[in-house]
Amino acid sequence: MVESRLVGPVRVVGAGLLGTSIGLGLRNRGIDVILADASPTHMSIAVDYGAGRVPADGDAPQLIVVCVPPDVTAQVVAAELAAFPDAIVTDVASVKLAPLNELRALGADISRYIGSHPLAGRERGGPLSGRADLFIGRPWVVAAHDGISYQRANAIDDLILDLGAILVEMTPEEHDNSVALVSHVPQVVSSLMARRLLHGPHAALNLAGQGVRDVTRIAASDPELWVQILGANSAPVRDILVAYRDDLDRFIDAIADPTAPGARRRIAEEIAGGNDGVSRLPGKHGQDRRFASMTVMIDDTPGQLARLLHEIGEVGVNLEDLRLEHSPGAEIGLVEISVLPEAVARLTEELVARGWRIAG
Amino acid sequence: MVESRLVGPVRVVGAGLLGTSIGLGLRNRGIDVILADASPTHMSIAVDYGAGRVPADGDAPQLIVVCVPPDVTAQVVAAELAAFPDAIVTDVASVKLAPLNELRALGADISRYIGSHPLAGRERGGPLSGRADLFIGRPWVVAAHDGISYQRANAIDDLILDLGAILVEMTPEEHDNSVALVSHVPQVVSSLMARRLLHGPHAALNLAGQGVRDVTRIAASDPELWVQILGANSAPVRDILVAYRDDLDRFIDAIADPTAPGARRRIAEEIAGGNDGVSRLPGKHGQDRRFASMTVMIDDTPGQLARLLHEIGEVGVNLEDLRLEHSPGAEIGLVEISVLPEAVARLTEELVARGWRIAG
Repeated sequence: MVESRLVGPVRVVGAGLLGTSIGLGLRNRGIDVILADASPTHMSIAVDYGAGRVPADGDAPQLIVVCVPPDVTAQVVAAELAAFPDAIVTDVASVKLAPLNELRALGADISRYIGSHPLAGRERGGPLSGRADLFIGRPWVVAAHDGISYQRANAIDDLILDLGAILVEMTPEEHDNSVALVSHVPQVVSSLMARRLLHGPHAALNLAGQGVRDVTRIAASDPELWVQILGANSAPVRDILVAYRDDLDRFIDAIADPTAPGARRRIAEEIAGGNDGVSRLPGKHGQDRRFASMTVMIDDTPGQLARLLHEIGEVGVNLEDLRLEHSPGAEIGLVEISVLPEAVARLTEELVARGWRIAG
Repeated sequence: MVESRLVGPVRVVGAGLLGTSIGLGLRNRGIDVILADASPTHMSIAVDYGAGRVPADGDAPQLIVVCVPPDVTAQVVAAELAAFPDAIVTDVASVKLAPLNELRALGADISRYIGSHPLAGRERGGPLSGRADLFIGRPWVVAAHDGISYQRANAIDDLILDLGAILVEMTPEEHDNSVALVSHVPQVVSSLMARRLLHGPHAALNLAGQGVRDVTRIAASDPELWVQILGANSAPVRDILVAYRDDLDRFIDAIADPTAPGARRRIAEEIAGGNDGVSRLPGKHGQDRRFASMTVMIDDTPGQLARLLHEIGEVGVNLEDLRLEHSPGAEIGLVEISVLPEAVARLTEELVARGWRIAG
């Protein structure tokens, strides 16, 4: 059993993907988790799955984590604050200013509430998609406000660190502006692009490659959830969409006559601006910029990959990431490995000496 | 040596990603490939790589494939038609109407020319990124026109089938409208989204998850190439962008006051329309449906991955694809492996028996 900061019991309200994952993660650390969900089906799946136990009379949770849809978050938080007058309450909704304002309007005791938002998720929802490791290495925002003492807010920090997430402190406004940019506006942009695909013939869609698939992947998201998120964060989302539309208008002007003086330069600048923007995304983008990647060609025979990894281990180079590309019908596979940049030269030399083919 | 339809020799002009890949694929079938490139560096890399040979006096290619940037495609095609009066010439540029019109304007002999476009590519360009299997299973459009006889056009069909691609016949107009929808407009939408990322604080970008990374992945594309593509296909791209902007305007109106009557319904309809649009994309969406994937958790210690692969080999299950997910700071890695669906149950059982943790 791994040591934990929280002592528990922790009450988790809402046994969907996030609630179940929190329960699983805390149970792994031996913390008593009490689950609550309006759906008996969700409830029994999550309990069977090992995410926690059913409530019992006299339960006195130290901490309550509300994991329900954004629209009902404030109401449920208020009810929990009232029902458990000694507990600290947090929520995990993906907007943070609206619930806080609503709680203030409801006259709830926000000296025991602090909102939070784990930036983690999966394409599939529901308790069965829950994973104890869902939050590991992911940012988890604590939306600080003045109405709660440092000591009380500490319980939320413990929750986040116990689940292996990276604690990020922001004001609710900073949080909402940030997720508008990196989550909510990309969702709208992707959904509207996917909507255009309704208007093409099948023959056109058959030409689709990885590019349009990537751009529209999140367009498969749940409309019901997104109405709630976008409705609760409408002002920052609108501001960014208006700026996006202004760029789009300029682009449409330029492309209306690409032979006009300056038109090609303007088109190039918009695309180059995209290069600069995407390079600001931290960490790996397909690949991690702290690491250098190299590609080794292997024959498509059993044991080749295991042998390669064994020999990389012998050379004493630490593998940061690995991806096997295997094209059906091809007799070779391409193994893309990421290592520290300073290790590339030596590893290349050692692998070539052992007969491996380095593709680049 | 696999049997081929083409007899060759085939001359490939331009030894970048596509030219080199075509050369490698044809060489695999024993076809004599003559390479030509203005860059001596590209030329020598492609020859060393096995994509073909240098030109010789008296070369009489049956087929010429022009693989140069869109802006210069028509000029190079015209020059090849003139230099080799018995050869059929095609090109692989990602726009098809503009080069044909330009060739007509140049008075070129289009009774020996038919344009084509393989829908295949990689994020990296250049001859070293070339792969013999780049086109396998990918659509390859032949842009039919009335000026070339059925029999002559046949050589292009043979090229496409020899390289394992899927032949798709369209008019140049149909082609350009199709790629505007599934390639060119997604590029613009992605680049403009990425451009917005220039205007956020670093703290906001640190919250970025897979969604915005996917939406903006292709925003890292080469501006120089895209100016040429977008400039050469400006009318269809503009039409779709205008329709996109009209949707965006409606969305911005709705989100300006999400509490107004009907606003939430309109927001939901836009997102739901995206659901419908993305579901029209054929085949796999992110992962190969012929295979099932499972995730194994490994400790971040040397040799763990090699041991896992060794033991999968012992179990006798063939690995179709593998991806190591390694979160900075995390003590575990997640290895996502793809295997045939029927192998999942047995492999899970065997791996669990050997002490591996299966995460899902």
